[in-house]
Amino acid sequence: MTDAQDIRAGEVPLDFDPAGRAHAGVTFIGRIRSDWSKGNAPRNISQAREMGGGDPRIELDPAYAPGLQGLEVGRPIWLLYWMNRGRRDLILQAPRHAPEPRGVFALRSPVRPNPIAMSAVVITSLDPKTGVIGIDATDAFDMTPLLDIKPWMAGIDIPPCI
Amino acid sequence: MTDAQDIRAGEVPLDFDPAGRAHAGVTFIGRIRSDWSKGNAPRNISQAREMGGGDPRIELDPAYAPGLQGLEVGRPIWLLYWMNRGRRDLILQAPRHAPEPRGVFALRSPVRPNPIAMSAVVITSLDPKTGVIGIDATDAFDMTPLLDIKPWMAGIDIPPCI
Repeated sequence: MTDAQDIRAGEVPLDFDPAGRAHAGVTFIGRIRSDWSKGNAPRNISQAREMGGGDPRIELDPAYAPGLQGLEVGRPIWLLYWMNRGRRDLILQAPRHAPEPRGVFALRSPVRPNPIAMSAVVITSLDPKTGVIGIDATDAFDMTPLLDIKPWMAGIDIPPCI
Repeated sequence: MTDAQDIRAGEVPLDFDPAGRAHAGVTFIGRIRSDWSKGNAPRNISQAREMGGGDPRIELDPAYAPGLQGLEVGRPIWLLYWMNRGRRDLILQAPRHAPEPRGVFALRSPVRPNPIAMSAVVITSLDPKTGVIGIDATDAFDMTPLLDIKPWMAGIDIPPCI
């Protein structure tokens, strides 16, 4: 991952690596399957929706499949997943779309102290026996480790100022 | 935490503890400050907003404060935090509000394989020097460990079926 170690002009690293300061452990409960890998991935999930195709889905580890009870096709859900390919210490970042460097907490960049990404997607198929869940789209690379699935709820997930 | 080990009728544990299977580590970047502790906490963030008061805020560890650059008062943000008080192995749960047990992935319960919670809140004050961020409300206990702050974005965070 040499290229992930590059720093652009204006970018600032922390003076320590958050990856070396684990306060708690996460477990991978499955993986996201997609057609995307480094080089061909959409910029974001909106672009992934426009591109369509592929067979975006979740493969839950079978032990967790009973946890799907109560979900159904058409329901919006959150996927939380682990973006484990980049560095974790860039506190100021210079994305190509921004005129000047920004703090990591003002960006949705996968490069962050805890590389947890979240996507709101819609269930398109559901097999509670195998733990395979079709979803309408994803911008995650194939085999991205999954951390959690939660029901999306308008009353919680839309902030009051919107 | 003896009471957290109780199981209600219809609840089913995994045959292993996800807490014992760490595939990656998270680091705590600060904490949520609130008036809430076990016994007096609101049921959810909507109720916390109705109750009002307190002085809900984030105390970011000072090293991470530069990461706030680009955020401002009035902006909606996500807080991701670590709900570390419960067990992690209940795959079917029987919440008091539900007529029958449900899978953990159909619930927003803090009891889950990876106890990562998320709240959409609004910034009410911001001091990039100290890393203290006032927020409109929280239902998190005082001193809950913070994992991440991200900008809330309608184009990503509202699923297409809504």
